[in-house]
Amino acid sequence: MAASWFAVFRLRMRGKSVVVRHQVLNQVHNHTSVGTHVGASQVQAAPDHHSDEKENERRRLLHVVQAERQEQAERSVLISCHATNSEKKFLKHLSKYGDIKKHFFYQSFGLYAVVEYSSQESVASLLEHAAIPTVNHESMVPFKSRLLSLRSLASVGSADQQSGQHCQPQTSPPISELIQRLSREESIDQQITALTEAYQLTEENIRLRFLVCSLLKDIAAAYFPECTIRPFGSSVNGFGKLGCDLDMFLDLDGISGRNVKMPRSGLSLEYHMKSANSERAVTQSILSVIGECVDKFGPGCVGVQKILNARCPLVRFAHQPSGFQCDLTANNRVAMKSTELLYLYGELDPRVRSLVFGVRCWAQAHSVTSRIPGAWITNFSLTVMVLFFLQRRSPPIIPTLDHLRDLAGPADKSVIEDNDCTFVSDFSKIHIHRNTAALGQLLCEFFDFYASFAFNKMSINIRKGKEQNKPEVVPLHIQNPFETSLNISKNVNSTQLERFVALCRESVWILQQSATNSPSGESGATPWGLAALLQPLQVPGNKGRKRRSREPASERIKSLLESLKIKNQS
Amino acid sequence: MAASWFAVFRLRMRGKSVVVRHQVLNQVHNHTSVGTHVGASQVQAAPDHHSDEKENERRRLLHVVQAERQEQAERSVLISCHATNSEKKFLKHLSKYGDIKKHFFYQSFGLYAVVEYSSQESVASLLEHAAIPTVNHESMVPFKSRLLSLRSLASVGSADQQSGQHCQPQTSPPISELIQRLSREESIDQQITALTEAYQLTEENIRLRFLVCSLLKDIAAAYFPECTIRPFGSSVNGFGKLGCDLDMFLDLDGISGRNVKMPRSGLSLEYHMKSANSERAVTQSILSVIGECVDKFGPGCVGVQKILNARCPLVRFAHQPSGFQCDLTANNRVAMKSTELLYLYGELDPRVRSLVFGVRCWAQAHSVTSRIPGAWITNFSLTVMVLFFLQRRSPPIIPTLDHLRDLAGPADKSVIEDNDCTFVSDFSKIHIHRNTAALGQLLCEFFDFYASFAFNKMSINIRKGKEQNKPEVVPLHIQNPFETSLNISKNVNSTQLERFVALCRESVWILQQSATNSPSGESGATPWGLAALLQPLQVPGNKGRKRRSREPASERIKSLLESLKIKNQS
Repeated sequence: MAASWFAVFRLRMRGKSVVVRHQVLNQVHNHTSVGTHVGASQVQAAPDHHSDEKENERRRLLHVVQAERQEQAERSVLISCHATNSEKKFLKHLSKYGDIKKHFFYQSFGLYAVVEYSSQESVASLLEHAAIPTVNHESMVPFKSRLLSLRSLASVGSADQQSGQHCQPQTSPPISELIQRLSREESIDQQITALTEAYQLTEENIRLRFLVCSLLKDIAAAYFPECTIRPFGSSVNGFGKLGCDLDMFLDLDGISGRNVKMPRSGLSLEYHMKSANSERAVTQSILSVIGECVDKFGPGCVGVQKILNARCPLVRFAHQPSGFQCDLTANNRVAMKSTELLYLYGELDPRVRSLVFGVRCWAQAHSVTSRIPGAWITNFSLTVMVLFFLQRRSPPIIPTLDHLRDLAGPADKSVIEDNDCTFVSDFSKIHIHRNTAALGQLLCEFFDFYASFAFNKMSINIRKGKEQNKPEVVPLHIQNPFETSLNISKNVNSTQLERFVALCRESVWILQQSATNSPSGESGATPWGLAALLQPLQVPGNKGRKRRSREPASERIKSLLESLKIKNQS
Repeated sequence: MAASWFAVFRLRMRGKSVVVRHQVLNQVHNHTSVGTHVGASQVQAAPDHHSDEKENERRRLLHVVQAERQEQAERSVLISCHATNSEKKFLKHLSKYGDIKKHFFYQSFGLYAVVEYSSQESVASLLEHAAIPTVNHESMVPFKSRLLSLRSLASVGSADQQSGQHCQPQTSPPISELIQRLSREESIDQQITALTEAYQLTEENIRLRFLVCSLLKDIAAAYFPECTIRPFGSSVNGFGKLGCDLDMFLDLDGISGRNVKMPRSGLSLEYHMKSANSERAVTQSILSVIGECVDKFGPGCVGVQKILNARCPLVRFAHQPSGFQCDLTANNRVAMKSTELLYLYGELDPRVRSLVFGVRCWAQAHSVTSRIPGAWITNFSLTVMVLFFLQRRSPPIIPTLDHLRDLAGPADKSVIEDNDCTFVSDFSKIHIHRNTAALGQLLCEFFDFYASFAFNKMSINIRKGKEQNKPEVVPLHIQNPFETSLNISKNVNSTQLERFVALCRESVWILQQSATNSPSGESGATPWGLAALLQPLQVPGNKGRKRRSREPASERIKSLLESLKIKNQS
């Protein structure tokens, strides 16, 4: 079958094992390895599986990873290839313009390919030979970008039919499928690892994210040639789930000519520029123009909304060819620092990411979190709660933010709008305590920890790594790590907090039950362990079922934790 | 006096004699001559003052002139220099970045200089060394353009004071001043020539217009690197008056990749582009984004209005540093052809421009034309009426458009939206009849011609060079030269037409009077000749004065014309 290669090699934006997938791709497609150390791409149950050298190789500075990704993206083009059904022909045609370093296919609104050339000249050559389409009764906005369509005049009909086969979505699997998949695993540790692998961003998805940033940068660079568009948040902090929004910010800090020392006397030249009475007003202007351009010129960009009066002004749009929901902000420097911090914590110990993935999936299953703004706990708050829990282990699995700040060198110094955002960037300076607790044990302890946390009096503080007295009366107080006078969870009301606590208690109880504590024998027949936790639970607010117990979870959990520890040691 | 050079050499955007001014500038400033053949820059009373070689040298194709101007503009920068008072220091500083080919100063909202470098690298070097200004409590939109400010930290106060001296406005002189000036001339011919010299665009003003186009092109080229912004209409057709609007159009025709022949089989690449259901909708999109950008980023651009639902969508704004009111349209190809045609007619015989300037000034003085849209006769209609009048002379002073079309070579062929816009571009192919009528005589004949024109039945048609039967019932019918089914004066109502005819009659009558037919002896004491025509006239609709005569002007004019002819021959 001529078209079967699509079925086999089409980019699997999610899959059972990232590592295995990459090996297959590399063998069969002869892709050149370009360094796939991108945060969450390798997952291990515990740190002792790694040698120290491997650890140091894996831990790379976020800005180094970003720079490499950006450079890759600028040598790449995005091609809609609904009209071809032969990879060989595809590659033959695209190779006319230069040496292809890497390519992959994926399904979004149609079949697309990302093609990375070895040099930017090849991209220029390709664009030089591309035509502006002529369609009857339609006129084109002649804005040329690196988003192209491949046409085959001979066999459009048959190709269209075949390309619809075997296409996989770019989003994470639905919860029901995930529960089945996890139920077939043999330990809770393996379940958490499997969940992480199913949910985390793939190498290809990250490349696609950087490519979309790069395409948007071409628009912004029209006016600000020295600008960059950087992804931040879940796309790069290592905690992103397939299908998560693409948060970007327009970085204008690289524009030269600022803070130039003027001569004491004599003449000097200055740019004549439009001014506004605040940095915010300037940001609004810039985003307004870029939003207008994305709306009117940006191929594949739809549903553009300018949300310029938000605390952090943004332009929101859907990028159809990638399937990403995009948010573009500007000069969002604190958010970039938060991203770097989460990335660093995630790189320090693989259990950090896995536990975050496990807890966030659990929270989503029970509507603790929501994509809709409201009184729900946010993913960021939940992540900080996991970090705080890991700081409170004995010995701690990750260091406090104050400790990371104390380790910082002069180059790490960062003060943004009077907030001290300094922390160490050199991983080798960070000493990690040896704590070999397994993922299953940590998950259970997490629920137990927050089931009995004194939310009424105490604030969660990853800077100190210790709960602090609440500075104000709110149901949930989690100190913003950088803007320390702010509470990142001020939106949460007492109902939502109580549900969260009740769900933690219930989850400990379930893990305690022998029926749900281990595999059922018949493979995957009954959800158990983490899979059981993802099914509807009996807590106040969940109608129709009664709570089974009101005794403190900490009492009931002891035997469970003991049994988990024994399993892990064996 | 250190600052006195400003008083002497500051650009005189209008003046008594363009030719004399250029000589002074070239001698004292040692400006390199860069070819000042720009339409109306030389004015002569009659063609026999020129040798044929001079004529051919002067007559250059508009697109050749334009290309040279555009190239000059791209090597130029516009500098606000409120803080300097020494030309020597100014030149010394600016020469750091490269060889200056030409420079001049002018007064607009403050003192400005246009500096043309020999090479674009010098401009790049200058921009590289320019700083982004820092102003307390203000933030800058960091959009870098070739509009800069020169700062002098030593002597800001004193310079500010002095730069206010001896500055001349960029607009044409007020009518009262013009009347005085004309009254001092010795013949009507000289009056018309003096009026033309006072009103027409100067070399520097034309340079400034092309520079503003070039600055705007930098904005548009951000998205459409292959685009051009071309001035059209009065800025380049030779009939522009100082202070007239700057009409520009965004020319996207140069964008490559259109009408590419697709291969019969195999693969080919196309740009993915936003589409709309009409060329007009695309134009609206593009102008909307550029308008947004001019509004938010464009330094010195104020009062931006997007008039996108007009028949020809446009963006209107004021460019403060140049003082120009700007209209930007897109793909306005017929308007460009009209511009070329007027330019050609103006180049064929210097009397064409002079007569147009005289008639338009007269029309403006009596509110026959108006800057406000309404039932008034437009400048374009009035210009076509002058052209038609000159075609109807015996022998004709200019050929018909049909004749120009018949002379066209294959390269001249132009069909725009089914309209034949073909006419000859090679001046040497055009044979001009020998008609030596002087300007004063022609002016008088113009009024007489339209005082008795059968507007009720006939249409003015420069294509045929003969009046045609009106195709529809309207007060005034002037066939659009290229879109021949349209009437360029359909806005004119019968009241306005009647006023025009009455003013023509009255003007003939005035020229006939011996008191206003020749200088008064005491130099400039009493307005006479053309100057008398620019004073309030007694026609219906002008309150307070009665009409002196109702007999046909043609009867009264005979003796006057005879006397003018005798004067001219002597």
